[in-house]
Amino acid sequence: MKDLVLAIDTASVRGSLALLQGERLLAEYTLESPASYLNRLLPGIDRLFLDIQRQPTEIKAVIVSSGPGNYTGLRIGMSTAKGLALGLDCPVVAIPTLETLAANFPFTPFPICPVLDAKKNEVYAAFYRCKQGFPEILGDYLLVTPAALADRITGPTILTGPGLERYGPWWQSRLGRHAVLAPPELRHLRASALGRLGLFRLEHEQPCFLDQLAPFYLRPAEAELHRRPIN
Amino acid sequence: MKDLVLAIDTASVRGSLALLQGERLLAEYTLESPASYLNRLLPGIDRLFLDIQRQPTEIKAVIVSSGPGNYTGLRIGMSTAKGLALGLDCPVVAIPTLETLAANFPFTPFPICPVLDAKKNEVYAAFYRCKQGFPEILGDYLLVTPAALADRITGPTILTGPGLERYGPWWQSRLGRHAVLAPPELRHLRASALGRLGLFRLEHEQPCFLDQLAPFYLRPAEAELHRRPIN
Repeated sequence: MKDLVLAIDTASVRGSLALLQGERLLAEYTLESPASYLNRLLPGIDRLFLDIQRQPTEIKAVIVSSGPGNYTGLRIGMSTAKGLALGLDCPVVAIPTLETLAANFPFTPFPICPVLDAKKNEVYAAFYRCKQGFPEILGDYLLVTPAALADRITGPTILTGPGLERYGPWWQSRLGRHAVLAPPELRHLRASALGRLGLFRLEHEQPCFLDQLAPFYLRPAEAELHRRPIN
Repeated sequence: MKDLVLAIDTASVRGSLALLQGERLLAEYTLESPASYLNRLLPGIDRLFLDIQRQPTEIKAVIVSSGPGNYTGLRIGMSTAKGLALGLDCPVVAIPTLETLAANFPFTPFPICPVLDAKKNEVYAAFYRCKQGFPEILGDYLLVTPAALADRITGPTILTGPGLERYGPWWQSRLGRHAVLAPPELRHLRASALGRLGLFRLEHEQPCFLDQLAPFYLRPAEAELHRRPIN
């Protein structure tokens, strides 16, 4: 029976996979994966199915993190999701990484600011409010320096996301009580939350065509910046 | 190097295991496990270490859910934790199941009420407030009917925990807007949160002696109720 939702996140160094059946979480694995996702993603998905004793043919939808985040990680996650969906003839839904990170804080009066390290002394960030468990973005996606992000924070704000590992203490000292740092275990993207957001979108919007799906980077990759013109 | 914290939760049908290194989450696996924990817990722990390429000898503390919850699950979790700690000569810290469930909601103005199904038309529950990421219990642990729990709720309250699977819709219709139901993926106990709470306790309190650790049930098990006196 095609009733399983597979959620795949490879946007940061800590990957997360989940299988859901409607609201029910069957399994979720989150692993810091310094080794390449190329070698670990498919075996990880295999193991999920083995553990719950179901088959990939029972997938009804694949939900994937669309970015921003780790360039190669996103490409591998997105390619795997598209490959599975093509093979299984099921839809793929892509959800922005920052949105899923914000979904960890459904009942807070504060704005939520998930942050990913974008290297080169910049961060990917956005501000959200959660309404009934679903994050709504306030303004635009940002690619800014940590100082420029701090300048935008004028009241208590939940800072979350893997970007805190590097910049959390700095924001804390700069912003004082306006920087409400998320507990470490809620800074990571949960594939179970990704699955819920994707399933909701699937029920309320037309799914994207496979060839329109692409990772969302906010800036060109190094390799593209340095590519020399062919002619 | 002994710097790993292993967190084990087997209090409900959905078990969770995590390995942390200080604040850093290395791996977390959560699995609905209708099969016995007896067969799955140790292989699961083995796999965690294999995945992060570390050894159980590198454990500095074991954190375990103390209950309330599934009677056999708790005994297996607690026994495994004690066995590991004895073998590795490291401390064990036990954290109440409901406390870890409340830790999923660190920044909310509402009281948090985690609920576990206790069968026989009763639930295990307690009310908490989260202060700076750490839940503080308000009042006592409860073993009550769903209706008696509803009678105690007089303002907006976050209902969470695996007990919602059975009673969530009923509370929602009985309590209306006072019942703020947690999103499905935040209703489960996260071993990563368990590890953080345990590590904090370990840093601020003397650890328990191994022979004083026991699961916390709130009511005697069926087997004990029906045990005939030996003489």
